[in-house]
Amino acid sequence: MKKFSKVIEKIVEASSIRYNNSVYELLKKKKDIIILSLGEAFFKLPILSFKKLPLPEINHYSHSRGIIELRKKLSNYFLKKYGAKFNPDKEIIITAGSKAAIQMIFFSILNPKDEVIIFEPYWVSYSEQIKLCNAKPVRIPYNKSIFDIEKYITRKTKCIVINNPHNPTGKIYSNREINFLLKCASKKNIYILSDEVYSDFVPNNKRFNSIGRFNKKKNTIVVNSISKNYGISGWRLGYCITNEKLTNQILKLNQHIITCSPTILQYYVEKYFNDILRITKPQIKKVLDVRKKTCLYLKHKQINFLEGEATWYIFLSIEKSYLKSEEFCNKLLKKYFVSCVPGLGYGKSCDKFIRIAVGTEPWKRIQAGIDRIEKLINSTLK
Amino acid sequence: MKKFSKVIEKIVEASSIRYNNSVYELLKKKKDIIILSLGEAFFKLPILSFKKLPLPEINHYSHSRGIIELRKKLSNYFLKKYGAKFNPDKEIIITAGSKAAIQMIFFSILNPKDEVIIFEPYWVSYSEQIKLCNAKPVRIPYNKSIFDIEKYITRKTKCIVINNPHNPTGKIYSNREINFLLKCASKKNIYILSDEVYSDFVPNNKRFNSIGRFNKKKNTIVVNSISKNYGISGWRLGYCITNEKLTNQILKLNQHIITCSPTILQYYVEKYFNDILRITKPQIKKVLDVRKKTCLYLKHKQINFLEGEATWYIFLSIEKSYLKSEEFCNKLLKKYFVSCVPGLGYGKSCDKFIRIAVGTEPWKRIQAGIDRIEKLINSTLK
Repeated sequence: MKKFSKVIEKIVEASSIRYNNSVYELLKKKKDIIILSLGEAFFKLPILSFKKLPLPEINHYSHSRGIIELRKKLSNYFLKKYGAKFNPDKEIIITAGSKAAIQMIFFSILNPKDEVIIFEPYWVSYSEQIKLCNAKPVRIPYNKSIFDIEKYITRKTKCIVINNPHNPTGKIYSNREINFLLKCASKKNIYILSDEVYSDFVPNNKRFNSIGRFNKKKNTIVVNSISKNYGISGWRLGYCITNEKLTNQILKLNQHIITCSPTILQYYVEKYFNDILRITKPQIKKVLDVRKKTCLYLKHKQINFLEGEATWYIFLSIEKSYLKSEEFCNKLLKKYFVSCVPGLGYGKSCDKFIRIAVGTEPWKRIQAGIDRIEKLINSTLK
Repeated sequence: MKKFSKVIEKIVEASSIRYNNSVYELLKKKKDIIILSLGEAFFKLPILSFKKLPLPEINHYSHSRGIIELRKKLSNYFLKKYGAKFNPDKEIIITAGSKAAIQMIFFSILNPKDEVIIFEPYWVSYSEQIKLCNAKPVRIPYNKSIFDIEKYITRKTKCIVINNPHNPTGKIYSNREINFLLKCASKKNIYILSDEVYSDFVPNNKRFNSIGRFNKKKNTIVVNSISKNYGISGWRLGYCITNEKLTNQILKLNQHIITCSPTILQYYVEKYFNDILRITKPQIKKVLDVRKKTCLYLKHKQINFLEGEATWYIFLSIEKSYLKSEEFCNKLLKKYFVSCVPGLGYGKSCDKFIRIAVGTEPWKRIQAGIDRIEKLINSTLK
């Protein structure tokens, strides 16, 4: 008898995590690595008082939808920020991170062999989460237009996933693009899952609109993250917003798989919501400024990258080098002590790209990192 | 196109959670309910200092296996308590609760149509978690002997699940039973998943042995809970221990579904591990004393229950009443203001039982609750 399931054998380790594990190993050996691979923004955050949180409530299970006080706060936040209304009693579930939310959504809607459309470069877990449902990720190469999507829709298509703002390019979808996707989805009666976990990492002069604003809950599912947006990625607090019926399906799964996200952390975030926003806002701005500077520096170096302004990621081209993305990143790490994530993990069409993340290192070191990337490109020219 | 997946439509809401939601609704209406339905033990726990935890580490992702310091602590604890050795680097994953661990184990080993043997009364999520893998729960009625298990093993059997100590009966498996199950599993090359989340709720005069002690990691998987055992059920910290190869499969899933359990809570539990043990030990003893008193009181009332000494649950018989378990519990809640969980959720053979939990109410109220249960039985005699 085979010891493992077929589905688990098809699932590959998250390339970004695997990659970062080799980084940790080098760090343990006291190597000075310029880390441009981490999917986090490092903020200075004080620890506010846990003693002011309600005891014993913080120790016990919460409602599987999450504590109502936090659901209400998120509902108000959405209304104020996006003009998007949702019912905190029935249309939101707070989850143990946004990953868990996305996985439970997929289980709730996908049958074996159903298809889900994802755009390359796509976030590494989408494809594996879809595979875990025995469904099929349909990948659109990075150089195709969104407006070509109808060619990829079949009778098996159940869902389109967008990541907006986008990891790893930093792209913000235009209203025209979203409206087009919504029209397609509505016509074909399929879902759009909009993963908006970087919604707060948007420059002041740009406008990001949650798909929730477009108010077609029948077909749309919003996923967002508290922990990602506010520099507490390790706290694992996400949420999803959709219509009541689908929410009830996801709720069943949450009851059986996780029960609830950590009650104590839900209460913390609820109590200090405004403090967290106030403390993180200037730091978010700083990360976005560094991102902008990095883009200018890359342009100056004539290193191309895919267009985008949001998040702390840049997806840059290594087309001038004869190396493919994994060889490139391995060499970069072992010879130049800079860590980036290979593009291949984001889709087959992306093997001449690497992802850099500018959320964890000071500007001088990011600059030095780019200098070394340039060096490696120049020493491996086609 | 159907909006939901077939598999999610087959999954039923956790009956215990559904039931507790009606309890919450009555509580909101200011009804005084004697709560004997909650799967928690209410402890008095001080909140120790979060400011002493390492910043910024507590805010960031941890290794998907969990922080190594906590893995080492658990490894030592296991060695000391059970004489069971495991490698903290390779044979354990800390998860966002034990439920998530069990679900990921099932995904890692089950193919569609595979069978998993569970014993009635079984914990309500096992069957649904198995169904989520499109596999089949094979339920052994409560009145069959463990030693009859071979009759239920087919070529499709992939795993046997035991809950030891057992929710809802409080049973502790004897060494003879465990050795028998291990022999069967080894002969048929199937897994035994031992869910040991109540391992610390065992009276002093009784001996509980983790299956890890029997040291057949090739076929055995131990699941345990930090949050459940130490009165912080809402913190969602569990773990699983098994051989390196299977651990690596589960790790992939953890990376894609959850990333890691909350880093800040991992550090807290690691730092205060001994304090938590010291603070909870006498309170665990108290709960077990209340359980013992409750059993005596039930005997005095001539209300039967399934044998057991551990946990804070008792699975008691309503065979004298003509009501089935759901009708019984509904009436009990609405007319007598006592909440218990219907036996039906624990398997079809258990429809003449109800589960009471003595972890949250003082003794006097538990006594009053039992008096009302007796009243309802007597007013609905067959």
